[in-house]
Amino acid sequence: MMFSTLAAVLVKNFAPYACGSGIPEVKTILSGFIIRGYLGKWTLLIKSVTSPLAVGSNLSLGKEGPLVHIASCCGNVFAHLFPKYGQNEAKKREVLSAAAAAGVSVAFGVPIGGVLFSLEEVSYYFPMKTLWRSFFCALTAAFVLRSVNPYGTAHFAMFYVTYNRPWLLFELVPFALLGVMGGLYGAGFVRANLFWCRFRKNSKLGKFPILEVMVITLITVLLSYPNPFTRMDASTVINELVQECGPTSHTNLCDYNVTRHYHGLNTTFVPASPSGGLGDGLKTALWQLALAFLFKCIITVFTFGMKIPTGLFIPSLAVGALMGRIVGIGVEQLVYTFPDNPMWKTDCQFSNGQSCITPGLYAMVGAAAALGGVTRMTVSLVVVMYELTGGLQYIVPLMLATMFSKWVGDALSGEGIYDGHIRLNGYPYLEQKREFTHTTLAADVMRPRPGEPPLKVIVQEGMTIYDLEELVKSNTLNGFPVLISNDSQRLMGFVCRKDLIVALENAHNRPEVTEDSPTYFTLHCPASVSELGNSNPVRLFNIVDLSPIAVSDHAPMETVVEIFAKLGNRQVLVTHNGKLLGIITKKDVLRHIAELEGEDPEKIMFD
Amino acid sequence: MMFSTLAAVLVKNFAPYACGSGIPEVKTILSGFIIRGYLGKWTLLIKSVTSPLAVGSNLSLGKEGPLVHIASCCGNVFAHLFPKYGQNEAKKREVLSAAAAAGVSVAFGVPIGGVLFSLEEVSYYFPMKTLWRSFFCALTAAFVLRSVNPYGTAHFAMFYVTYNRPWLLFELVPFALLGVMGGLYGAGFVRANLFWCRFRKNSKLGKFPILEVMVITLITVLLSYPNPFTRMDASTVINELVQECGPTSHTNLCDYNVTRHYHGLNTTFVPASPSGGLGDGLKTALWQLALAFLFKCIITVFTFGMKIPTGLFIPSLAVGALMGRIVGIGVEQLVYTFPDNPMWKTDCQFSNGQSCITPGLYAMVGAAAALGGVTRMTVSLVVVMYELTGGLQYIVPLMLATMFSKWVGDALSGEGIYDGHIRLNGYPYLEQKREFTHTTLAADVMRPRPGEPPLKVIVQEGMTIYDLEELVKSNTLNGFPVLISNDSQRLMGFVCRKDLIVALENAHNRPEVTEDSPTYFTLHCPASVSELGNSNPVRLFNIVDLSPIAVSDHAPMETVVEIFAKLGNRQVLVTHNGKLLGIITKKDVLRHIAELEGEDPEKIMFD
Repeated sequence: MMFSTLAAVLVKNFAPYACGSGIPEVKTILSGFIIRGYLGKWTLLIKSVTSPLAVGSNLSLGKEGPLVHIASCCGNVFAHLFPKYGQNEAKKREVLSAAAAAGVSVAFGVPIGGVLFSLEEVSYYFPMKTLWRSFFCALTAAFVLRSVNPYGTAHFAMFYVTYNRPWLLFELVPFALLGVMGGLYGAGFVRANLFWCRFRKNSKLGKFPILEVMVITLITVLLSYPNPFTRMDASTVINELVQECGPTSHTNLCDYNVTRHYHGLNTTFVPASPSGGLGDGLKTALWQLALAFLFKCIITVFTFGMKIPTGLFIPSLAVGALMGRIVGIGVEQLVYTFPDNPMWKTDCQFSNGQSCITPGLYAMVGAAAALGGVTRMTVSLVVVMYELTGGLQYIVPLMLATMFSKWVGDALSGEGIYDGHIRLNGYPYLEQKREFTHTTLAADVMRPRPGEPPLKVIVQEGMTIYDLEELVKSNTLNGFPVLISNDSQRLMGFVCRKDLIVALENAHNRPEVTEDSPTYFTLHCPASVSELGNSNPVRLFNIVDLSPIAVSDHAPMETVVEIFAKLGNRQVLVTHNGKLLGIITKKDVLRHIAELEGEDPEKIMFD
Repeated sequence: MMFSTLAAVLVKNFAPYACGSGIPEVKTILSGFIIRGYLGKWTLLIKSVTSPLAVGSNLSLGKEGPLVHIASCCGNVFAHLFPKYGQNEAKKREVLSAAAAAGVSVAFGVPIGGVLFSLEEVSYYFPMKTLWRSFFCALTAAFVLRSVNPYGTAHFAMFYVTYNRPWLLFELVPFALLGVMGGLYGAGFVRANLFWCRFRKNSKLGKFPILEVMVITLITVLLSYPNPFTRMDASTVINELVQECGPTSHTNLCDYNVTRHYHGLNTTFVPASPSGGLGDGLKTALWQLALAFLFKCIITVFTFGMKIPTGLFIPSLAVGALMGRIVGIGVEQLVYTFPDNPMWKTDCQFSNGQSCITPGLYAMVGAAAALGGVTRMTVSLVVVMYELTGGLQYIVPLMLATMFSKWVGDALSGEGIYDGHIRLNGYPYLEQKREFTHTTLAADVMRPRPGEPPLKVIVQEGMTIYDLEELVKSNTLNGFPVLISNDSQRLMGFVCRKDLIVALENAHNRPEVTEDSPTYFTLHCPASVSELGNSNPVRLFNIVDLSPIAVSDHAPMETVVEIFAKLGNRQVLVTHNGKLLGIITKKDVLRHIAELEGEDPEKIMFD
């Protein structure tokens, strides 16, 4: 509890951005938005210190989200050391994508899983080049991790399983069931957690983050102590749940009321009592599993989103493993009780006393299903799971559960936890995966709207330095369209605000330029003073983007959204037969989508 | 030999498209090009029959490429059963991407590897939706494969390895060396094979495909019979090479001149002679391995690209495994001969007589390196390798070798085998991965070039049905820009050829329309005959694309190439201040790139 309070105090006083998972924010940043300081040195330092504190306090939270955030901070800080990367937002984002991959790699020792997680969940633009670089980054991370060898085992995998008994065809039914349960859990978790976070934001609770952390820690500690499956740290619990009962396991989980003979991979049962295989220890364990499952389900909802670094992988895996082990023991007892059912009779050969169900495998599948339900990962989840457990031969069960979990989860709550938090916090994130299905036109979205003052524009010839300076001062727009003339309204190009400010400063430094000097955005401008009377012309042709992306006012918004999502630009100009009508910025698109979906467009946060 | 000749005859007479690997063509098709009949029923049938024949004739070829092609044919034939997919090229391409994933999945039983192969190597546009669908497709494929269980093992993996001894730090040096060797082999193979294929194309040899197959088969059979490592089929050889020597292995490969005691995972050596660990059998085996390596290297160059279905995975893996096993035995002997070298002394504890080098692991790493050198896969290759072997704990060696192999391969030959064959065959494929680094402008590429006749355009008002029909007949352009008027030359929209033809046919079916009827591409057109004199107006507003992608003539070609690669359109219009100047089609871009790279632009094939 001291740990978690200390973490909360540090986060609150030194780096408010160090709280939470960090993945929603990193995702938003990778889509092109800038959150100043979010990937800075202070955040890096404080999150590095507080994440272990939070994990150490035995709260129901993990380290994967914070490690992705920490890795991205490292990537950002590092990128600023090299001008080529630090000064180019696109290049910096490539570095961040690779860093996110490395973050997951080191969190769990899953190098390929990390790359795919970065590809599937975190990144926005992911060209092949980035895939290759992330791969290199993850390799280095994996190599360092292997050299340090923090788990003290020869195996790379955190939850390495030793069994490799084949699964049976009828088991696909319980595996699919686990997938459905994982999807239900995930959808429930996402909805409940978003509800709670919204409540926290809007109520007085939001003003006492440290008190909240203390209370939740107290409740967690008090309620988790009596139950061995919540008292131990979550990684140990998961590891215990996914293992099978072997000759050396003497925990309650393996207290079967039968005498077991182990020879190699096969186990022979000799029933000791007619009542069934469950020993008293196992009966207790089942109760404890069920209680631990319920407790973890509920407490994680309140824990994720507190003002300390909170990851979601480990709690989700733990919930799923608890669920899976219960189902697994159930199936095992079913087969034990009805050995002659035709569904498993031939496969199991139970009459020979050979066990054929591995409850640990169910825990593994359940863990995948729960994590899938919460995050809606697919390919990356399966790879992460088999890198975590080494259970390569269980790929069909894992894929099946992942699939059902995603179907059920998507049906019950349309978004994963990260997208949910992006929307909750109002980050300007343009969802790439969801299709834009409305039939609005560019003309409906562009500014100026009817009644608004006309667009701020530049005319290619004849504006003075003074005019331009006034134009820059009068607003905070990102840039200005350049017209051929005020009469024709025909579009010639686009000038970025930044470039214009630099160009004006440069002009001021030249002695012959005055406030009245005319400016020329055309390729050819009068060369000498004599042609112009007294003042000296200023050539600004080189700062004009001559091919700004422009669409017709009749263009469907579907096209406009696709242009924003794929080309990553910040604005699109709207023309009608070559005449400039208006402009659509990314913000306008996000506001428009929010309006169409019945949400409050004003709560979207902008830089 | 009968098999291969039969295959060649079938391919030549019934389905010429069934030859070769098929991956370059599928890649081209997925980038938006249409090769009629390439994915048709006949190709499917003939390739399904001839691929097993070719593999069965013990030529140095595999089944992965043909299976990707067969799966894509299935996908295509299937898509045509559902109008939603069959009639929409974009949707059909999604089906084909998923089918390619399933193809690799079933070829080797590597479901995730298949999805990643489709993502990394085959597909062009790969939205997240497609990832998810490919995943589903691969799951189904994996499940069916698991149910049929063609390898008769409980394991899913084709080359399942049973050892899990950890690798040692100093071994990274030979692993990196294997990567370099794999890259050298790959680059050499790509260059030699492209040279040979170009020679075949331009010489008389290309006219006797059946004779060529017969000769190559004869040479292969004669030369491979004496050597056990070429006599056996390649999969068996690979499997034998990647295994370790255990208590039950009595082949030449394991004839060490020492007495071995096996206990669990560790092996104790008791040297029987002072000369070293190599027995006579192993010495013979080493010679055979080296000869097999050389033979496979050379014969594969001539085999890949013959007019029968030829895959490249298995031969490449075999070459790499041969190479790796030789290096592995070398390293093992090095450690055996100098047990006291500080580099491995502590790790190996050789003084206790415990072996620490697994030559089979070197074969696995070598196989990955060779395949990586040939295809330049990265992430997908590592996943394929560990799905093939189950060697999850060897991910760092595999990644390291893949990385070196790609570096060396890219340095020595800029492209992988598939891209090389795309270029060789002149398919219009716009490389997405390579950046466009030239500084040309849109104005340099657009048509009409100076001196050429003006662009064929439509004017929005006043053209008659006859004018439009003449326009359509006079050329084969994909579509026509619509101008506001001939005087202003200002762009209003774009009309596709297909849509225009359909609209003209519809108009002809109406009795009141004559050849002289005026057409209107504007939103409002005169409603009644009285306003126009005798003829009836035809409204064509609904077929105009009002927001065609247009760029300025000063736009850098870099931007234009990006638009083509990312948005997947077929043409871009070029304007100057709203006036239409010209058009750039995808073909123009490809010709331009070919010119800049000093190649013959005329050899690019177009549909």
